[in-house]
Amino acid sequence: MGGDAVEKPEVADVSEWASIEDVAEVASRFEAADLGPDQTRALFGAMSLEQAAAVLAAVGDDLRAREVLHWMPHEQSGPVLSAIAPAHAARLIAALPRDERADLLAAVDEDHRSTIQALLPADARSDAARLLAYEPDTAGGLMETEFVSYSAHAEVRDAIRDLRANQQRYASIGVQYIYLIDGERKLVGVAPLRDLLLAPEGARLSTLAARTPTTVRDTAPLHDVAAAFDEHAFIALPVVDSEGVMLGVVTRADATVGEQEEAEDDYRVSQGIVGGEELRSMPVVLRLRRRSAWLGVNLVLCLGGAAIVAMHQDTIAKVVVVAAVLPVISATSGNAAMQAAAVSIRELTLGVIDPAAWRRVLAHEAALAVLMAFPLGGAVAMLARLWGAPWTVGAAVGLAMALNSLIAIAIGALCPLLLRRLKIDPALASGPISTTLADVSGFALTLSLVSIAA
Amino acid sequence: MGGDAVEKPEVADVSEWASIEDVAEVASRFEAADLGPDQTRALFGAMSLEQAAAVLAAVGDDLRAREVLHWMPHEQSGPVLSAIAPAHAARLIAALPRDERADLLAAVDEDHRSTIQALLPADARSDAARLLAYEPDTAGGLMETEFVSYSAHAEVRDAIRDLRANQQRYASIGVQYIYLIDGERKLVGVAPLRDLLLAPEGARLSTLAARTPTTVRDTAPLHDVAAAFDEHAFIALPVVDSEGVMLGVVTRADATVGEQEEAEDDYRVSQGIVGGEELRSMPVVLRLRRRSAWLGVNLVLCLGGAAIVAMHQDTIAKVVVVAAVLPVISATSGNAAMQAAAVSIRELTLGVIDPAAWRRVLAHEAALAVLMAFPLGGAVAMLARLWGAPWTVGAAVGLAMALNSLIAIAIGALCPLLLRRLKIDPALASGPISTTLADVSGFALTLSLVSIAA
Repeated sequence: MGGDAVEKPEVADVSEWASIEDVAEVASRFEAADLGPDQTRALFGAMSLEQAAAVLAAVGDDLRAREVLHWMPHEQSGPVLSAIAPAHAARLIAALPRDERADLLAAVDEDHRSTIQALLPADARSDAARLLAYEPDTAGGLMETEFVSYSAHAEVRDAIRDLRANQQRYASIGVQYIYLIDGERKLVGVAPLRDLLLAPEGARLSTLAARTPTTVRDTAPLHDVAAAFDEHAFIALPVVDSEGVMLGVVTRADATVGEQEEAEDDYRVSQGIVGGEELRSMPVVLRLRRRSAWLGVNLVLCLGGAAIVAMHQDTIAKVVVVAAVLPVISATSGNAAMQAAAVSIRELTLGVIDPAAWRRVLAHEAALAVLMAFPLGGAVAMLARLWGAPWTVGAAVGLAMALNSLIAIAIGALCPLLLRRLKIDPALASGPISTTLADVSGFALTLSLVSIAA
Repeated sequence: MGGDAVEKPEVADVSEWASIEDVAEVASRFEAADLGPDQTRALFGAMSLEQAAAVLAAVGDDLRAREVLHWMPHEQSGPVLSAIAPAHAARLIAALPRDERADLLAAVDEDHRSTIQALLPADARSDAARLLAYEPDTAGGLMETEFVSYSAHAEVRDAIRDLRANQQRYASIGVQYIYLIDGERKLVGVAPLRDLLLAPEGARLSTLAARTPTTVRDTAPLHDVAAAFDEHAFIALPVVDSEGVMLGVVTRADATVGEQEEAEDDYRVSQGIVGGEELRSMPVVLRLRRRSAWLGVNLVLCLGGAAIVAMHQDTIAKVVVVAAVLPVISATSGNAAMQAAAVSIRELTLGVIDPAAWRRVLAHEAALAVLMAFPLGGAVAMLARLWGAPWTVGAAVGLAMALNSLIAIAIGALCPLLLRRLKIDPALASGPISTTLADVSGFALTLSLVSIAA
């Protein structure tokens, strides 16, 4: 960073402070140190929730305390706010930018949320209640409710007078456009602020503005908001209700943050972290409940494959080496299924395939699957021979591997399409379902073919 | 969307056009239809690269052709541009916004890139060459090179005169700030455009501007750029070189798009799609090479566990039921390792843990791991009994499962920290490495304990 020449302490050094027991000492070190976002997250991330709440409550400077809330992941700041005095929490929340207040309140548990909400100043309270009513991944959930609007009949000089009078306040909300509204607060025009600069003072604002401004509905899902920004070069779009009444502004950055969070969610749930982000500073009980729910489901699912093996114990007793081949077939089929599923999920997200286009998807996987199946089958056959299997058994397991890669790739490719049509999140369920099915078919194929060959 | 009342065709209907063989017919349907981003991606996503290139070349209206390039994923638009006449490709690229040109050129293969670059107009050519020199995930790679700058000695009226004269051009680059530079193009001040609106005409621009503007270095990695936006409320930051010379502007939206792409990359590589995004419209050879490279590595890795089983064939011959238990232990340990790895990767990304803090990570996993280990062990022991194993074998496999969950969770939690210190992408390598190690230890533990118990 160019402008700020101050050397900031290392992340590792700062997180050591979390081991200091004296809460006031940690708070005063924090206040003295002018930490950036990384160091602040590292310091509070190294604390338990109770400790983090105590330190935050001990920070005398509200501006600094606000920074902590601003930079902490919401999964941590929500519980931390629940753990400090509600009046203090309300004071800190009221000092945050308006669009952040609702996001943060949504992360606080319900009992504390209503207490804190009741302690907010009246305008912040009604504002937060309105934003909390929207799903977070909609234009209404993403929007900022502060914007600069004028009557369409006003003149340029009226707007400039108002902008001058409210310079401080408007600077903090980063005004880029002015919005023109009619007597019922319906949006009738939008003009970029810079056009105001270049217009004659006596001109009517309506002469500067686009007649049919591009808008998004408050209920529009994130994907539609992002598509609108893809389609138009604007840096912000007005959000309106079904009557065309202007409710707020959603910025390109808001939409992109929403998409970033979606991508992070996809990654997280595909790795088995379900029910929201996990941080190690969270209570063990919560982490245990979430992780074991996922492990439990997967344990039950993998019984499908294991039961097939248990039913074929006689085959294994005859040809023991097949027990060493099964994990290879399971892992390889699972990986092949996951790859195909990942491509389908990505193409669904990008919008390049329709969930109904299963024929096209299969057609595009067929050549690839056949070309992969034979080398994989050959490798597994050789492996079995190497471990002492007779050549008939080698051929049987090789054939099973080859056939099962075809099946696994087809399952993986189609599973996300089906889940999307069933309105189940493909990133969450495709992995467990397609690897389970690939295991079941892989074990069944291998053991049946081996029992014929042996 | 409010403003545009035109009904757009369904994604599925549009993608049917890809089956029309007559390229000119597809191009003219596309030109007549005014498709949005989703439909455009669906239409071109359903084509082979050759077909997409032929259709794009047949689109007469350059404005519409540009939209296709703007909305297509770069993984598709790069090869498509390589396949059309270089002069045509250069004309389309020259018409794109400057920061997009370099990104798109980077996606074109190297031979075609230099040919196309040579055909660009002189200013676009030098501009692209400069941007291509930066890593994509740095401030230099993310920045836009168009900005509005004035001498610090100029007056407000000079700036307004220039803004008025260049209104059209500045509208297209979305000016939000004006930058003040000295005789050597070094940045000496920044002022929001709205302050210009409110200042007296005769004031010097230097009186409006922040003295020590916050800047980012051209070589700053994405993470530092994002942290600067976390720390400051600006919507854009100036990018400077080591001498303080102003090179461009990076916006908050640019930084967030970078972070979104990082999250998408993490997801993609964790699912075995390596070497860049895969779309089914890509050539089969490329898809085959990438997918089989990953499958091959994982096949070799899973031999570790399989070799352990092959070495214990005598144990399995004695207690065949253990062959049915092994896949359960493998899948469950692998899932437990992946969960722990995902939390470590996320905490590293958020900056809440330092890669050296392995003791703290282990301490936070210990209680969780112990609480998960016993139910999992119990479940596996019961399962083995159910499938007819004697109680000693049931106890042995249950104990193996319990111990191996502890090991798997420790491996999963620590693996990303170690990989990060070795400068290997944890999202790419944590999965294969930790599941392999968990398999090896799981199979070894199970078979050793069973051979003692049986």
